[in-house]
Amino acid sequence: MRLGARFLAVDWGTTNRRIYRIEDGIIADRLHDARGVKAIAAGSYPAEVTAMRARFGDLPVLMAGMVGSSIGWRDAGYVAAPVGLEAIVAGLAWIDARTAIVPGVSVVVDGRGDVMRGEEVQLFGAVTAGLAPPDALLVQPGTHCKWAEMAAGRIARFTTAMTGELFALLRGQSILAAQLGGAVTAGPAFLDGVAAARDQGLAAALFGVRAAGLLGLRDDTEAAAYTSGLLIGADVDAALRSFAHSEVHLLADPALGALYAAAIEAHGRTARRVDSEAAFIAGITAIGALT
Amino acid sequence: MRLGARFLAVDWGTTNRRIYRIEDGIIADRLHDARGVKAIAAGSYPAEVTAMRARFGDLPVLMAGMVGSSIGWRDAGYVAAPVGLEAIVAGLAWIDARTAIVPGVSVVVDGRGDVMRGEEVQLFGAVTAGLAPPDALLVQPGTHCKWAEMAAGRIARFTTAMTGELFALLRGQSILAAQLGGAVTAGPAFLDGVAAARDQGLAAALFGVRAAGLLGLRDDTEAAAYTSGLLIGADVDAALRSFAHSEVHLLADPALGALYAAAIEAHGRTARRVDSEAAFIAGITAIGALT
Repeated sequence: MRLGARFLAVDWGTTNRRIYRIEDGIIADRLHDARGVKAIAAGSYPAEVTAMRARFGDLPVLMAGMVGSSIGWRDAGYVAAPVGLEAIVAGLAWIDARTAIVPGVSVVVDGRGDVMRGEEVQLFGAVTAGLAPPDALLVQPGTHCKWAEMAAGRIARFTTAMTGELFALLRGQSILAAQLGGAVTAGPAFLDGVAAARDQGLAAALFGVRAAGLLGLRDDTEAAAYTSGLLIGADVDAALRSFAHSEVHLLADPALGALYAAAIEAHGRTARRVDSEAAFIAGITAIGALT
Repeated sequence: MRLGARFLAVDWGTTNRRIYRIEDGIIADRLHDARGVKAIAAGSYPAEVTAMRARFGDLPVLMAGMVGSSIGWRDAGYVAAPVGLEAIVAGLAWIDARTAIVPGVSVVVDGRGDVMRGEEVQLFGAVTAGLAPPDALLVQPGTHCKWAEMAAGRIARFTTAMTGELFALLRGQSILAAQLGGAVTAGPAFLDGVAAARDQGLAAALFGVRAAGLLGLRDDTEAAAYTSGLLIGADVDAALRSFAHSEVHLLADPALGALYAAAIEAHGRTARRVDSEAAFIAGITAIGALT
């Protein structure tokens, strides 16, 4: 175990950064800030880590997320799925003897490729900590929603959907933008959208939002929830056709988790909430222990 | 016949305007400019029509398109489908005794609403001119692609898909933007996209474009054609599930028409090209003749 039981774990994404001091698998100290890789100049990663050690203790550092991409500190590459924890550890990008970056995971099935970077830590951690069984379907909603199938504790295959990004584009830039200012909750309008997504192509279902407004078929205050239901519903519908599991383990913040749980239940499957942070801590601790 | 056999027909859209002097169903003179309704100040429509008459002759004027919307000259409303030519004529919004605007068409099927404004003239004209049979499926690709079923010469039902707008959003603003600068033709990459759209949810298929670039599975010069194939393929796939016709009558410019024809043929249906302008002239002449 090169890193030891006390180390700093960094969940370093595009926009956000979470730093933890971990001692024997427990969070001893933590910091959440907005210093994602977009905010870090290319040459200043060593100084960032020096500052972390000054703040949290002069300990080994294990990082995951976009810090290991071509726009981060160093491209840590991808390890090909199916993949277990050992291959992730073997693929660590070592900056020096006590500073490493977790590689991403890639998959190619029937010619379709996919990638993840950072999510793999939560996936392994959920299983390691017993938050999900070794054979399970997990979903990590967000800008790019990940659906991952674990088999015998390994990442077997996964699919990413641009669900959150599409909603942001529609709300920000599209002909629907003026209608989409309302709140999004897992109420009747959201569930109507989930149901409608099963029956129509997405591009046609979306235009139906505009037509419903023009024809007075739906109050525009409900349009955002309905449209979110269309997008999340289409995502869930497609994923559950591909992944046959009766239970879905859901790693998400409460608001987005409530939407995905409602859509999953509307499809007759069971959604089980998993604490994303607990999964990350378990996963990064397991990786550190195998170094 | 209030309008007479000689009149000015205006296809007045959001961005573009086409003015025709029609004499006995034939184009005697024409002008295409960029003075769509977005370019016209609210109070200046009378002056625009005065200018048309000064340029083309002091004739009756029959207009269709967004000029009849809430952002145009006057909201001409919608006539509910199923609808024939007579109901369109009965629904004309008369500005004065020789100046009228064609109403739009609305439809509600199983609670899903849809609207068109301007496309109805081409649909009726295609049938009136014998360019499509009275029972037919027609498609009008574009920013908002219309699929319309004619039955006994009437518009029976229709669906609009935001296909072109989604492609523009993805190319302009999304994480895929940097990959989507390439040419879009109906070649192998486009057809790969059409095929892939059958097997995956759209949001997941789109993320596959990014992953294929990162993993080197597809050259980024082909990403735009593939992504267009995904979007048009998903549109065609959903529409052809809803409309069972073996032939699709296609009203489109040559470039977009070639893409839709390729996707329709890939789905085992026959695409028949129809001249959009001839359809518009026939339709507006038929409406004028019934006034």
